[in-house]
Amino acid sequence: MNIKMLVYILGKVLLIEGVLMLLPVVCGAIYGEKEFFVYLILAAAYMALGFLISLKKPKNMTVFLKDGCVATALSWLVLSICGCIPFMITKEIPSFTDAMFETASGFTTTGASILTNVEALSHTSLLWRSLTHWIGGMGVLVFLLAVVPMTGGSNMNLMRAESPGPSVGKIVPRVRSTAKMLYYIYLALTVTEIIILAVCGMPFFDSVCSAFGTAGTGGFGIRNDSFASYAPHIQWIVAIFMLMFGANFNFYYYIVVRQGSKAFKMSETKVYIAVAAVATGIVCFSVYGIYGNLGDSLRHSLFQVATTMTTTGFATTDFDLWPSLAKFVLVALMFIGACASSTGGGIKISRFQIMFKAFKREISSYIHPRTVKKIRLDGKSIDTDIERSVALYFFIYLIVFFVSMLVVAFEGHDLVTIFTSVTATLNNIGPGLSLVGPTQNYSFFSDLSKWVLIFDMIAGRLELIPILVFLNPFTYKGIIKKAPKIQG
Amino acid sequence: MNIKMLVYILGKVLLIEGVLMLLPVVCGAIYGEKEFFVYLILAAAYMALGFLISLKKPKNMTVFLKDGCVATALSWLVLSICGCIPFMITKEIPSFTDAMFETASGFTTTGASILTNVEALSHTSLLWRSLTHWIGGMGVLVFLLAVVPMTGGSNMNLMRAESPGPSVGKIVPRVRSTAKMLYYIYLALTVTEIIILAVCGMPFFDSVCSAFGTAGTGGFGIRNDSFASYAPHIQWIVAIFMLMFGANFNFYYYIVVRQGSKAFKMSETKVYIAVAAVATGIVCFSVYGIYGNLGDSLRHSLFQVATTMTTTGFATTDFDLWPSLAKFVLVALMFIGACASSTGGGIKISRFQIMFKAFKREISSYIHPRTVKKIRLDGKSIDTDIERSVALYFFIYLIVFFVSMLVVAFEGHDLVTIFTSVTATLNNIGPGLSLVGPTQNYSFFSDLSKWVLIFDMIAGRLELIPILVFLNPFTYKGIIKKAPKIQG
Repeated sequence: MNIKMLVYILGKVLLIEGVLMLLPVVCGAIYGEKEFFVYLILAAAYMALGFLISLKKPKNMTVFLKDGCVATALSWLVLSICGCIPFMITKEIPSFTDAMFETASGFTTTGASILTNVEALSHTSLLWRSLTHWIGGMGVLVFLLAVVPMTGGSNMNLMRAESPGPSVGKIVPRVRSTAKMLYYIYLALTVTEIIILAVCGMPFFDSVCSAFGTAGTGGFGIRNDSFASYAPHIQWIVAIFMLMFGANFNFYYYIVVRQGSKAFKMSETKVYIAVAAVATGIVCFSVYGIYGNLGDSLRHSLFQVATTMTTTGFATTDFDLWPSLAKFVLVALMFIGACASSTGGGIKISRFQIMFKAFKREISSYIHPRTVKKIRLDGKSIDTDIERSVALYFFIYLIVFFVSMLVVAFEGHDLVTIFTSVTATLNNIGPGLSLVGPTQNYSFFSDLSKWVLIFDMIAGRLELIPILVFLNPFTYKGIIKKAPKIQG
Repeated sequence: MNIKMLVYILGKVLLIEGVLMLLPVVCGAIYGEKEFFVYLILAAAYMALGFLISLKKPKNMTVFLKDGCVATALSWLVLSICGCIPFMITKEIPSFTDAMFETASGFTTTGASILTNVEALSHTSLLWRSLTHWIGGMGVLVFLLAVVPMTGGSNMNLMRAESPGPSVGKIVPRVRSTAKMLYYIYLALTVTEIIILAVCGMPFFDSVCSAFGTAGTGGFGIRNDSFASYAPHIQWIVAIFMLMFGANFNFYYYIVVRQGSKAFKMSETKVYIAVAAVATGIVCFSVYGIYGNLGDSLRHSLFQVATTMTTTGFATTDFDLWPSLAKFVLVALMFIGACASSTGGGIKISRFQIMFKAFKREISSYIHPRTVKKIRLDGKSIDTDIERSVALYFFIYLIVFFVSMLVVAFEGHDLVTIFTSVTATLNNIGPGLSLVGPTQNYSFFSDLSKWVLIFDMIAGRLELIPILVFLNPFTYKGIIKKAPKIQG
């Protein structure tokens, strides 16, 4: 394991976190809040420490796949721990477990909160809280890759570990350009949303926080009722932007480079829109009786479908009070999730596409036993290795899901709470149903359950494998073996 | 498609059903019930019709894999439809949907009932109802194979379609001997249970019905409170027999042929016992407060764990009133299910074993990217084809599960009812939680939902693939194409 390289990466991550913390510092200065000092000192400390640690570039910059997993898992831990310290120092979230829950929930773009009164937070901390969504949405390592040049396969191994989806589609041959391009698109869409929201009458501070939450598909609200008290046209705008950030970013890339025909041929985008449309239709049918008119029903349905499917987690209404059919559809969408290479979570549309094709082939193998076909997606044949990984992903997902539920079940809450609290954290959504419904929060859980859910948030954001490799003792076998050798 | 062979098989199935119906006829004669005549006439009619249809043995006895699937699906449909007619004629279950639900639930060894008062049924019908469990447990086609000689791969293709588990382990080289051996063991264990129960003070009629329900891991009770009002020692005996019928039958085979060492090396059996023990421990811990003493807590815990894990569905207590932790464990066991090559349902222990090994290999491939290992189970290496099928099985399972829940959700019952009604039918258990809890029944569902659940019961018993091949229009492509050719 390339430990020097690991330390170097962690140093850079800390440096970036310090730099990004300057945004809440500016915010604190503008609003004249005392929290300003806390963020200023921490930002300076992180930058200095990160700078010093990553001062010496290691000679060997090679990152093997397992190193990539460990680097990614450690980076996310460092991000969350360092990110939660301001909440503790300002006493806005005094408990370490709670502060860690809130921050991990932010970086992993989950949006599950332990705060009972969000509006009591300072603007400085509210902005930092929403900014964590934006940072976590596209990934801090992807950002790092856009900035730091590395050798051939190394950056690929880092990107593979952090990026969502069954396989990283290298849009352009070089990973560094891909990473840069992703961030340009991400930034452009975010700024566009901020401007549109502000122009449409949302306070500027709210526009920035909401756009960060939408872009990262995070879901932290800055009002206690999330989006319920914003004007209907604001809700429509946010719903559409949520859906845009849940789409595969290759779609935007193709449009930017004027390959529109390629963009509109992407089957994942089509399936994504179709699922959203059908789900909105069913939910609208189910809740029509509550709102009594098509406009309101459609708005609330589309918003809740968009927020669930993209795993954002905003809410315009308490959908825990909706009929079973609507609730069932929302829970199903929590699992399906958004597109690969988006900022959204969940299992991802393209994984389902690959499995559906494998399923069709399996059935047809019973009818025509002699023909062996490779699965194709958008004209490209899917490698059997990827197919196997995707199939396994579903199983690993179920196991993590089951073990998490078992631990949470010891607390004795109702089955819907147990089920949806894990669903909403492992898929990085935020609100679930029953005790963790959209008007509730996660503060009542025991510390043990909170740590299990923190684990689920990070495991879900990193798509399970990196965190499992990180926790596997065999990953460190070489290091432990080497040590006695040197001494002997 | 070998249609002549299909007709021949269906004729034989009908003949067997007629012969087996003689058992309730005898019972009706003993109890002097008027239902006796209905069963007598139907038994005679089925035997005559089945005999006539299967009189001419087709020259070409070859059964391809898809033919095996169609034959199996059709056989189970014929079994269920012909099996439900007596209930309709005796007016004990007048509605066709309800009678079909009850009978399919019987043959698939589910044990979900639409009857609000089981004790109102005649002894004749009660026996027939429990006998369907016994017939369905080991499978009527497996019985057919034990009796009718077929060419090489053909019987294998039939057995593969009907037998539970990821792959049929041919205990002895010839399928016919395997089928015979399975039935001998099955019969011996059943008779043993009847004798033990009767000796221990259970009325003989109850012993027979209970043993049929246990052997097939069915779960139809003949009392309204299932097993709650039987003596504790009877409950212990039934719990142990349920666990025995949920074990891989190869275990008993090895013992019969004096290869005990092989039997006790079977990892599936070990995992099965371990899971049952751990689950019993957790449930016992969870319900201790309710019963206040270890004996009762342990008895109820073991019984409910055994009944759920083996997918039988008896109950000694209303576990819907148990704490969340205990309920969660039971629901999890519903999915895990029993062993392959047992009469139990669910996903099966060995499928989980294979996936766990694939999971471990996947993680280690991140650590040592160059080593490629084949999965091994009990010393035998698992074919990549089987591994792929098992992985896909989980996905297909999830899809059937989701679509079924979506249809049932339109009825608007609570989420736990929606979730567990599909869980309990697709895994062939019987009772679920909430509205389908152990003291409830399935009568309140709409006809549409009942048919969806009937589909789930049959799909679950045949392990999805055969029924999906049967419903796939491409399976019949050859036949439709051929027809115009002959005319032109």
